[in-house]
Amino acid sequence: MLSDIEIAQRAKMLPIAKVAENLGIDADDLEFYGKYKAKLSDELIEKCKNRKDGKLILVTAINPTPAGEGKTTTSVGLGQAMHKLGKKTVIALREPSLGPVFGIKGGAAGGGYAQAVPMEDINLHFTGDMHAITAANNLLCALIDNHMQQGNALGIDPRRILFKRCLDMNDRALRNIIVGLGGKMNGIPREDGFIITVASEIMAILCLADDLNDLKKRIAGILVGYTYDNKPVFARDLNAQGAMTALLKDALKPNLVQTLENTPVLMHGGPFANIAHGCNSVRATKLALKLGDYVITEAGFGSDLGAEKFFDIKCRYAGLSPDCVVVVATVRALKYNGGIPKAELASENVEALQKGIVNLKAHVENMRKFGVPVAVAINRFHTDTEAEIAVVDQCCKEMGVPYALSEVFAKGGEGGIELAETVLDVLEKTEGQCEFKPIYELKQPLENKIEAVCKNIYGADGVEYSAAAKKAIAEITDLGFGNLPVCMAKTQYSLSDDPKKLGRPTGFIIHVSEVKVSAGAGFVVVLTGSIMTMPGLPKRPSAELIDVDEKGSISGLF
Amino acid sequence: MLSDIEIAQRAKMLPIAKVAENLGIDADDLEFYGKYKAKLSDELIEKCKNRKDGKLILVTAINPTPAGEGKTTTSVGLGQAMHKLGKKTVIALREPSLGPVFGIKGGAAGGGYAQAVPMEDINLHFTGDMHAITAANNLLCALIDNHMQQGNALGIDPRRILFKRCLDMNDRALRNIIVGLGGKMNGIPREDGFIITVASEIMAILCLADDLNDLKKRIAGILVGYTYDNKPVFARDLNAQGAMTALLKDALKPNLVQTLENTPVLMHGGPFANIAHGCNSVRATKLALKLGDYVITEAGFGSDLGAEKFFDIKCRYAGLSPDCVVVVATVRALKYNGGIPKAELASENVEALQKGIVNLKAHVENMRKFGVPVAVAINRFHTDTEAEIAVVDQCCKEMGVPYALSEVFAKGGEGGIELAETVLDVLEKTEGQCEFKPIYELKQPLENKIEAVCKNIYGADGVEYSAAAKKAIAEITDLGFGNLPVCMAKTQYSLSDDPKKLGRPTGFIIHVSEVKVSAGAGFVVVLTGSIMTMPGLPKRPSAELIDVDEKGSISGLF
Repeated sequence: MLSDIEIAQRAKMLPIAKVAENLGIDADDLEFYGKYKAKLSDELIEKCKNRKDGKLILVTAINPTPAGEGKTTTSVGLGQAMHKLGKKTVIALREPSLGPVFGIKGGAAGGGYAQAVPMEDINLHFTGDMHAITAANNLLCALIDNHMQQGNALGIDPRRILFKRCLDMNDRALRNIIVGLGGKMNGIPREDGFIITVASEIMAILCLADDLNDLKKRIAGILVGYTYDNKPVFARDLNAQGAMTALLKDALKPNLVQTLENTPVLMHGGPFANIAHGCNSVRATKLALKLGDYVITEAGFGSDLGAEKFFDIKCRYAGLSPDCVVVVATVRALKYNGGIPKAELASENVEALQKGIVNLKAHVENMRKFGVPVAVAINRFHTDTEAEIAVVDQCCKEMGVPYALSEVFAKGGEGGIELAETVLDVLEKTEGQCEFKPIYELKQPLENKIEAVCKNIYGADGVEYSAAAKKAIAEITDLGFGNLPVCMAKTQYSLSDDPKKLGRPTGFIIHVSEVKVSAGAGFVVVLTGSIMTMPGLPKRPSAELIDVDEKGSISGLF
Repeated sequence: MLSDIEIAQRAKMLPIAKVAENLGIDADDLEFYGKYKAKLSDELIEKCKNRKDGKLILVTAINPTPAGEGKTTTSVGLGQAMHKLGKKTVIALREPSLGPVFGIKGGAAGGGYAQAVPMEDINLHFTGDMHAITAANNLLCALIDNHMQQGNALGIDPRRILFKRCLDMNDRALRNIIVGLGGKMNGIPREDGFIITVASEIMAILCLADDLNDLKKRIAGILVGYTYDNKPVFARDLNAQGAMTALLKDALKPNLVQTLENTPVLMHGGPFANIAHGCNSVRATKLALKLGDYVITEAGFGSDLGAEKFFDIKCRYAGLSPDCVVVVATVRALKYNGGIPKAELASENVEALQKGIVNLKAHVENMRKFGVPVAVAINRFHTDTEAEIAVVDQCCKEMGVPYALSEVFAKGGEGGIELAETVLDVLEKTEGQCEFKPIYELKQPLENKIEAVCKNIYGADGVEYSAAAKKAIAEITDLGFGNLPVCMAKTQYSLSDDPKKLGRPTGFIIHVSEVKVSAGAGFVVVLTGSIMTMPGLPKRPSAELIDVDEKGSISGLF
């Protein structure tokens, strides 16, 4: 089989104007970025606002394992399959971060015969959204340091600045730095650090903002630090919101691309799924619902992190009501959850599968708690045996959850027909009966909201707070942010906060180490253990393999 | 009169496809970035390569003063005037840096009725070239620090890393930093710093590269630092050039925009004019010469810095032969050179003008040394009196240099007709007689090349080297880079290296403090005094005034 980039480069892309035309979008409402990418205008959003919404289908997954689950691949493939069945389908995805492309991970626009294209553009600069976020983020930082340098009228305490600089690069040397060295003319020395752009609060804000005014209002509300006398300092105190919003004016417009089979894809925004909410922009999802009869979207990591926040943060803020959830799993990953090391996953192991399938059960049960119908997609590998598939079959039947095998990686949309039909069947049977509800109410105290997620979703017995976390919760509540939703930052590898506890752990406590408010984005980040917000490069970075020939054709991206 | 942004927002722009069509460019050779910006394809460059070149007109200026000379405004206005006269004209300009937009400077795409548009886009993200350069630059930095972290097989000495990180932001706190703090997992602690993106060697390389292969070759040749045993380390030793070139593949394509009067503008690249060569890309200039009968381009700062490097570095590398040089001056700036403070420049002062006009004389004489015909443009202000204009008239007549008054700021192309006719007249009269020659030969030793510029252009009596500079020259020569052109980094405010010496100083020595090689770009940077490569923000940054309304309309950019 060809590599992802080889498949992508052989794709028969339609001019993006044609993809738009098929959705009933006028060329005047497109802002082209080359021939195969476009931004969709604010006027288009305005024009469609009174249309009826399509059906919203969320693709999520079991806890990620080194075996790979293929959530984005399944999202793209399901979209391709629906499109093949003649359904007016739009896929709404996150846009990938540039930094990890040069590390281990490679591209992030699906895989095999289920990809969004143009793959190289999407994985490199795309339409510049990440760069705009980087610039807006770092303008705020420059304004903070400049304010202190120019007399510090607000009395900002350089030891208590919360807002960090960012770059879209995997660069561990920038995690902990000292800035402002070199004497009086060169700033105030202080500890600082860079995070990766997708971890910036600006990214979360962009993804939750309704329009330019809302964007500006949220930016103005970013808590950047505290004064010497312990008063909060917001971005608005530095008059930063106007220029920052100007930098983000185009980035706020959703991007249109296509799949290998010309299914339209709105790819827009990509916040971290731990310290942020992990799904594409509200604007892209809302617009997709106006443009398509069926919208397939995804959320980061497993359903405990991504889907929970999709429901409790994004859907709540945006007034979205999802119609179906697809939980993606692989036999390999379930065997890994049953305790089998990665190297042995290719061999049949029914026992390990039976042991590990509890992870799938937990995710399905969790999704049902939100009142949304669930289906399971088994992303099939050629190593999966009949005996193993039978285990999955039995488990799904016991749970009464519809499931389908998916072979979209190898076969594209054709390999997702069974899954598409399963999803369409669920939608038909549950039409009008879906009663989506978040897992907690906003008016509950922060501790209760945290407990609701930890007990009802993670399956924990309780929550333990560090002294610092307790203090932060009190402070944040005092500042008036106690009514915000919580954004749990937990390891993605386990339902618990211990990455080694696979399957469906029980009898555990969640340990909250730190609590921070993303006052602009509008959520309270609850950290359980240390979360990496600036990745590093590996010993042999992918960057060393990437090349471009004299014609501009890129190789080594995967 | 309206502000620059108000004029720009009222412009009747043509769709960029139409501007291209007027130049005979097929829509297939355009990569659109919205409706009013496009990149020009490599195929277009290939298609036109056998066409005859148009005439190349360089716009330069006297030494900059706080009074403002209006070099870019004159370049744009002259282009508009030629266009009005029915000449097939293309303007080739540098693209502005984002950082200074938030500081004091505001936009940099001309002014008044002589501007390149869309002004806001050009001054903000434009087509993303700056961001691509930032990413490529910082990828190399991440690879350097990662190499050391992962065992440091090359033995890179963290105390001798020359290549710095960059951001397109005015941020003094990043000038001197320590990175890699936080223990073993977070890198090797070392001193580092950020420069502004336009000061990055990557920018200089992009502007000198002929094509993707040449770009990659130059990137591979960047000297990033030294090993513990004093061996040079190049970007190629880190296998960085492929991925970096992939990041720059679109940035290498020239951008097409237009003036307020729809004259085509190729705006591409914008290196510093002190530590780099200060002119737009070779590719843009070469392509402009294939597309237009007349190409108007500019170089940074005064002719002592910008034009000298345009000739000695850019024209030499690219095999360009300029046909005419326009030296821009204002009566106000010449009075400032005569010792009058900025606040008093509005009043008539013939004596000060007579004293300061030696600066103009020096620049005209210098330009003639390159064998290129010269014209003078007086960018007229309403405060200029008849008696003052008479002084300029007499001076130009004494020098035998054609000159014209220009009122393009207030009147657009119409205000530049006299200048355009003067330039056309010069071109006609000197047709076939122009014998362009650089001021030094590459094979001369570095000291002789430095001396040639200092004596013949600056008017210095000699050159004095610091001990460090002498050592660096010896090392650079030993490394085999003695045959490169020199890139002088000197204050722009004086012909000497002392910014306070206005007019036409004599009896001075140039003090070379430091010498560095930009081995990838292909020149040796000679620093005279300290050159700021990361600007700061002022007490009241422009950023505080910039805003965008709910329709996306930007205000406060000027």
